[in-house]
Amino acid sequence: MKVDGTSYRTIWLAKDGRSVEIIDQTRLPHEFATLRLASLGEAAHAIKSMQVRGAPLIGATAAYGVALAMRDGTSDAALGQAYDTLLATRPTAINLRWALDDMRQRLKALPPGERSAAAWRRAAEIADEDVAINRAIGENGLGLIRDAAARKPPSSGKGGATINILTHCNAGWLATVDWGTALAPIYMAHDAGLPIHVWVDETRPRNQGASLTAWELGRHGVPHTVIVDNAGGHLMQHGQVDLCIVGTDRTTATGDVCNKIGTYLKALAARDNGVPFYVALPGPTLDWTIEDGVRDIPIEERDPAEITRMTGRTADGKILSVDITAPGSKAVNYGFDVTPARLVTALVTERGVAPASREGLLRLYPERKAAAAGE
Amino acid sequence: MKVDGTSYRTIWLAKDGRSVEIIDQTRLPHEFATLRLASLGEAAHAIKSMQVRGAPLIGATAAYGVALAMRDGTSDAALGQAYDTLLATRPTAINLRWALDDMRQRLKALPPGERSAAAWRRAAEIADEDVAINRAIGENGLGLIRDAAARKPPSSGKGGATINILTHCNAGWLATVDWGTALAPIYMAHDAGLPIHVWVDETRPRNQGASLTAWELGRHGVPHTVIVDNAGGHLMQHGQVDLCIVGTDRTTATGDVCNKIGTYLKALAARDNGVPFYVALPGPTLDWTIEDGVRDIPIEERDPAEITRMTGRTADGKILSVDITAPGSKAVNYGFDVTPARLVTALVTERGVAPASREGLLRLYPERKAAAAGE
Repeated sequence: MKVDGTSYRTIWLAKDGRSVEIIDQTRLPHEFATLRLASLGEAAHAIKSMQVRGAPLIGATAAYGVALAMRDGTSDAALGQAYDTLLATRPTAINLRWALDDMRQRLKALPPGERSAAAWRRAAEIADEDVAINRAIGENGLGLIRDAAARKPPSSGKGGATINILTHCNAGWLATVDWGTALAPIYMAHDAGLPIHVWVDETRPRNQGASLTAWELGRHGVPHTVIVDNAGGHLMQHGQVDLCIVGTDRTTATGDVCNKIGTYLKALAARDNGVPFYVALPGPTLDWTIEDGVRDIPIEERDPAEITRMTGRTADGKILSVDITAPGSKAVNYGFDVTPARLVTALVTERGVAPASREGLLRLYPERKAAAAGE
Repeated sequence: MKVDGTSYRTIWLAKDGRSVEIIDQTRLPHEFATLRLASLGEAAHAIKSMQVRGAPLIGATAAYGVALAMRDGTSDAALGQAYDTLLATRPTAINLRWALDDMRQRLKALPPGERSAAAWRRAAEIADEDVAINRAIGENGLGLIRDAAARKPPSSGKGGATINILTHCNAGWLATVDWGTALAPIYMAHDAGLPIHVWVDETRPRNQGASLTAWELGRHGVPHTVIVDNAGGHLMQHGQVDLCIVGTDRTTATGDVCNKIGTYLKALAARDNGVPFYVALPGPTLDWTIEDGVRDIPIEERDPAEITRMTGRTADGKILSVDITAPGSKAVNYGFDVTPARLVTALVTERGVAPASREGLLRLYPERKAAAAGE
């Protein structure tokens, strides 16, 4: 998407053809800076420190991380080490494992001398596939926004009544290689001239809503307002939200959705107020091995400093961090929660829209039925 | 309560006998500082700028504000101006109007020459009554914590299994003259030797949980952990919350509860997970004139800078503010939301525990039944 008129993806091959570049998302929204990753270690650090984040982008970065690792050796052992190092960076995002499994399986089948070139080729394909998937999610989700517009009473102004959409965290183009998942339909609706407005949950901790979603919507010109995570219920009670749409880091075979902590609370409020709650996801985010998301998805516990410390701009333009909690009080930091399928109105995938259920998902991914039967 | 071994209330008569002192809560948790209020204007500013906050403390400060106004004149006009100035400071807290109505009614009945002394006397009484009310709320709420302890399977350790209590915002002694409302039972349980642990919602914006609740629990030695507002649902899904208890700024005759924004989301999660959700309130917080809280309670909209800017301590000990949101993105800041009575397990008042309903409230406040019949 565009940043100051220039088209960017979130990860791309550097001019030297043997390293990759990324947007350092830890510096947004205060500074826009790119960063070169030239080794397995740097790729792993970029994922772990959340210089790149968002399930699809984590997957693409991990794929490039394997390609970078091949620079130091292409043996089975080197491949295994790259796999283990990258897998350990983030425990919750399923795309990470999906991308790593894909890379390992393909490379292992090749003689070591062919692995490096194949790794770069496949990583680029994974990135391109993500873009195509997200474009398709956008097209499928756009229909849901048009439906919401059709349900609204017509306004006196031209262009119809504004459609208010609430989103949590960042599932925009910064979370993917391009387009985004939850934000792809929003960009398409905006570009199609639908009058939309986005309520952007601040999304504590790390504030990916206030930092990233607000930043990318602003750069694209999409009307939006930042709210605290506490505010969505009140807005829904007062008819100010027409639909919610969020991303997901992992979705179970039964439609349970693991996403940034707090998603579950918004889904509860949506249910209580009759607001549709949609989850946008690329196929690789589906974890067909898990049935009960609340019970079985491991929830990453991150550094409490993400809660107790906040980074921002001072009045004189410096970027610095301040401690915001009572001295001596401890904090715990769970990164995700699980929204049970019963609270999800529908899943929006690259293959279409389906109920959040095993039946709904198997209708879109029938090859999984065959796979399950063959197991 | 105690601060570094010294007993404090949140507001008290200064040694000169004609001004009052407060704890400047906008400087907590970074600095503990007291402040003298010597005029109506200073009292109004203290309420509006949230140097004092919390419904009961706002009421007591407003009462002292009327006494301070009497220094400049005791005419009906002066009394009316004090009333209007103080009432305009915060639109949601009902105690503010209750205290002001009480003061005006009593003072108007007196000749102007007697009003000043009577105002100081009555303000002190209102403060003392608040302390007595909160002590009684604490005793009544303690029974609910004991009930929760009795429901828990015994642990192998001595002292029984820890009782985990979640609270939102600050309804502690800092929100009242002393003891607190929601935290009064917690202090009493801790002092009685019950093994309790408090999950403290950070409570965006203004972060009264991370700043004030964590600070006062820490000073009193109550085990607690700060969490983001997004985390409570996840904790409840995983059996880590035995009960929730919060305060309220205004409660309707039907038991709808208006409290800090985000309370509604926690009540939804409590209901979804079978966790009791209690609301602690002093009688003066009840608004007998309102039936439908979601429809009819005015919700204060505050400065968006409370969302976009954050104050904290730098590594070298300076206190400063930083801007944390994407430049150019606007924000809106609703201060409160309304939790419908159907989500409230029980109301805890100075007169006992009752269901959140008209019948429950009239059982505790039967004089209101007579008042309604006589209207």
